[in-house]
Amino acid sequence: MKKVLIIGCGLLGSSLVRRISRYKIAKKIFIYEKSKSNISKIRRLKLPGIVVNSLEDGVVNSDLVILCTPISEYKKLIIKINKFISSKTIITDIGSSKIESSKIIKKFLKKGVQWIQSHPITGSEVSGPEHGKENMFKDKWCVLIKDKKTNSKNLKFLNSFWKKVGSKTIMMNVEKHDKIFSITSHLPHLIAYNLVKSAQDFEKIQKYDLIKYSAGGLRDFSRIAASNEIMWRDIFFDNKVNVSKAVDIFIKNLNSFKKDINSKNSKSIIKKLIQTKKVRSKILKLKQDINKPDFGRN
Amino acid sequence: MKKVLIIGCGLLGSSLVRRISRYKIAKKIFIYEKSKSNISKIRRLKLPGIVVNSLEDGVVNSDLVILCTPISEYKKLIIKINKFISSKTIITDIGSSKIESSKIIKKFLKKGVQWIQSHPITGSEVSGPEHGKENMFKDKWCVLIKDKKTNSKNLKFLNSFWKKVGSKTIMMNVEKHDKIFSITSHLPHLIAYNLVKSAQDFEKIQKYDLIKYSAGGLRDFSRIAASNEIMWRDIFFDNKVNVSKAVDIFIKNLNSFKKDINSKNSKSIIKKLIQTKKVRSKILKLKQDINKPDFGRN
Repeated sequence: MKKVLIIGCGLLGSSLVRRISRYKIAKKIFIYEKSKSNISKIRRLKLPGIVVNSLEDGVVNSDLVILCTPISEYKKLIIKINKFISSKTIITDIGSSKIESSKIIKKFLKKGVQWIQSHPITGSEVSGPEHGKENMFKDKWCVLIKDKKTNSKNLKFLNSFWKKVGSKTIMMNVEKHDKIFSITSHLPHLIAYNLVKSAQDFEKIQKYDLIKYSAGGLRDFSRIAASNEIMWRDIFFDNKVNVSKAVDIFIKNLNSFKKDINSKNSKSIIKKLIQTKKVRSKILKLKQDINKPDFGRN
Repeated sequence: MKKVLIIGCGLLGSSLVRRISRYKIAKKIFIYEKSKSNISKIRRLKLPGIVVNSLEDGVVNSDLVILCTPISEYKKLIIKINKFISSKTIITDIGSSKIESSKIIKKFLKKGVQWIQSHPITGSEVSGPEHGKENMFKDKWCVLIKDKKTNSKNLKFLNSFWKKVGSKTIMMNVEKHDKIFSITSHLPHLIAYNLVKSAQDFEKIQKYDLIKYSAGGLRDFSRIAASNEIMWRDIFFDNKVNVSKAVDIFIKNLNSFKKDINSKNSKSIIKKLIQTKKVRSKILKLKQDINKPDFGRN
């Protein structure tokens, strides 16, 4: 590939820049970044990409354009890009939710231009180009969104790109993608934010210093609840129907569990606790987490 | 101290044995363990304690007896211990909830015998003596339960014991303890179990393979949801009033968050997401977690 453009050079964008450069996946890497603070960081870090001030310089003649911005930026960017993009350039993005964003793409993107959505299952609670790493995508799943209209040649190109980046790829449609991630990712984040908020509410009422004792469980959730707020607002809004349904399933389980506790229903509680335990073994077997007690903290 | 007895030599019991021996905190360490499988492990691991078959051999002349069993074992053990314990022996336990267990102790323990409850804030999702470590308690908080009747000499002795074990100590009464930990520990565990259960419910209905994509958040919760089921049943039952209240606060927050998502109330969501983010910084500042993105997984 001759030229790639990364739009939005934060945690994941900068990780792509590092990886693409190191593995020579593209001859030239262009970066379009609107945050001045990120641009200074990119320069200070000497990231191996050419920072462009105009989107046109980045987009024209690119083989691939990758949006690594929050989902709420897509519409504005599409309208700008439409002016100079050709059908030779493939666009993708790395957003964690697809239902609403796919509709925006369908509605606003210039006809004849191919945008195949991607979702690499990776990230961290920290943001910014200084935290990016070239191995961010290594051995991680990357979902490619495929429907009946997806051009198979372009899909093959994008698939090969993610493999070069180090990911394992899988294809599915928007609906399946957003249902799965409403449970495995969006609900856990929503819960983490709300658990931490509940602790804060409790602290205010009781005037107890809770954080000191967070090692009993709260600290795990606090990590996820520290994730980027713009990114997560956008994901919750984009996938709101599935996320709402997931919250409902979860609240139903919470109420049933509470009932079991209050009636001291040992049989039912033990059955639930044993059943959920099995998931951890599966996750470790599938190498979806490090196999160290307590995340190897000590 | 001349003699200490550890009752229940699992993850925490065996960690105490290792630490007490290494730092010569007691001249003789006795272990009483009812699980045959754990006894073989203790022998195979050559843990530096004397395994006794009778509680009497362990208890008589001990300076300190530490119960490291699930809370539901306390009553049975108290009734047995009563037969040969003297007022010279101090008893403690390491249970994570105190309300119900303190009542059982008050009701059944022989008059004149001192039991001061402890709660070291440490542990892991794995169980058994093979996972114990001498540094399990190092730099961790240990709560000592103190009320008007607590003998100050005995409290001082116990306080000094936990400090030798490596912990930072703090004193509070049962009510405050159980309120705090209902939020920082019991609620997070309850949530983790129920999130994983919700994922399992969803998997059954949708026939999707979710676990493969657990790296988006679910895997963090699966670790906590893999904790010992007997121990956690007992904690939930022991602290059911506070835990139920905590679940109610949490469900209220979930519903309000869901409403914000469905009405796309950006201002309210962003405010919540920014507010909860601060807790992580506090936790890191207080050294209650390792300061590495993604728990240093990569």
